[in-house]
Amino acid sequence: MTTFPNITLRLPDWISELAQAGARYPSIEERMRFVIALAATNVERNTGGPFGAAVFEADTGILVAPGVNIVEAGRCSLAHAEAMALMVAQQAVGTYDLGATHLPKLELVTSSQPCIQCWGNVWWSGIQRLITGTSVEQTQKFGGFDEGPIPPNWADILRNRTPKERAVEVIEHVLAEEACVVLKRYTEKNGVVY
Amino acid sequence: MTTFPNITLRLPDWISELAQAGARYPSIEERMRFVIALAATNVERNTGGPFGAAVFEADTGILVAPGVNIVEAGRCSLAHAEAMALMVAQQAVGTYDLGATHLPKLELVTSSQPCIQCWGNVWWSGIQRLITGTSVEQTQKFGGFDEGPIPPNWADILRNRTPKERAVEVIEHVLAEEACVVLKRYTEKNGVVY
Repeated sequence: MTTFPNITLRLPDWISELAQAGARYPSIEERMRFVIALAATNVERNTGGPFGAAVFEADTGILVAPGVNIVEAGRCSLAHAEAMALMVAQQAVGTYDLGATHLPKLELVTSSQPCIQCWGNVWWSGIQRLITGTSVEQTQKFGGFDEGPIPPNWADILRNRTPKERAVEVIEHVLAEEACVVLKRYTEKNGVVY
Repeated sequence: MTTFPNITLRLPDWISELAQAGARYPSIEERMRFVIALAATNVERNTGGPFGAAVFEADTGILVAPGVNIVEAGRCSLAHAEAMALMVAQQAVGTYDLGATHLPKLELVTSSQPCIQCWGNVWWSGIQRLITGTSVEQTQKFGGFDEGPIPPNWADILRNRTPKERAVEVIEHVLAEEACVVLKRYTEKNGVVY
């Protein structure tokens, strides 16, 4: 009898040099700078695409889970930075619902706007706030990456979701220029664009 | 130093009773009946939601990877049946791109129409054909499940994707009535709806 493989997704080993569970990033800009550093390091160390993300406690800025794109190394088209951060966070807090009432308010910070897949991940994750860096246009222009058929009003669809308890606050274009630098560096290195 | 958990997603142990890698399902109906049986068994054994999916070689019907919803047990909001089948298939064939030119044509068969998240998964997976059972309306009506903000023309968006090599053939409503029975059984058992 032939059986089927399990799926094991691991963040790169260098993550522990940059990120510690429980470290505190008080401002939104510090949180964004951290995920841009994850994206930049992922490019530098050749461990994946130019994208970084992390789940934080929104009120305190405590880091719950980092994420980087490991699509190629992980042999997994789902393993975008946002998806990794959400999945690691769900393992860390012990539930698939990051909006569970016993948890503090959790947010996802991501160096680029989510693609169609990550937008769907956000939808079901229970995350309560989303903070993004580069826009779709910048991700396309500087990184050559397509975001898929995401509607132009994707952020409003999250904001206006019903019931109101499942609505997601969205803050866009935080330090977008700094995040663009990483996309450009990846393109210069001729990284794989998928 | 506190580190971060890895993500390990496993299909339920009973999968080996129903599914063997390399088994052959010649017709589309046989493939759909197989994924409906996965969905039904997932409900019966209390291992997850009423959804089953599998990746097959489209021309031969050889089973590459089964999938069932393990959102609760896996503590992972991404672990829908379609996502599991795609991820297990990518591990089995050794690449994130199920549309890679060295592979046979691969298809995803799913007992219910994909939600917004699984639609995004299909988009980046490289899968070349998608075969679905119940419609959005049936999944809502009989299972109480919401599919999220997926556009009504989701299938045409896959079919008309450019470049043409990345377009996805879509065949809908295969054995939908049989798939609805599983949704109803789940509702009767008062399964968790997320």
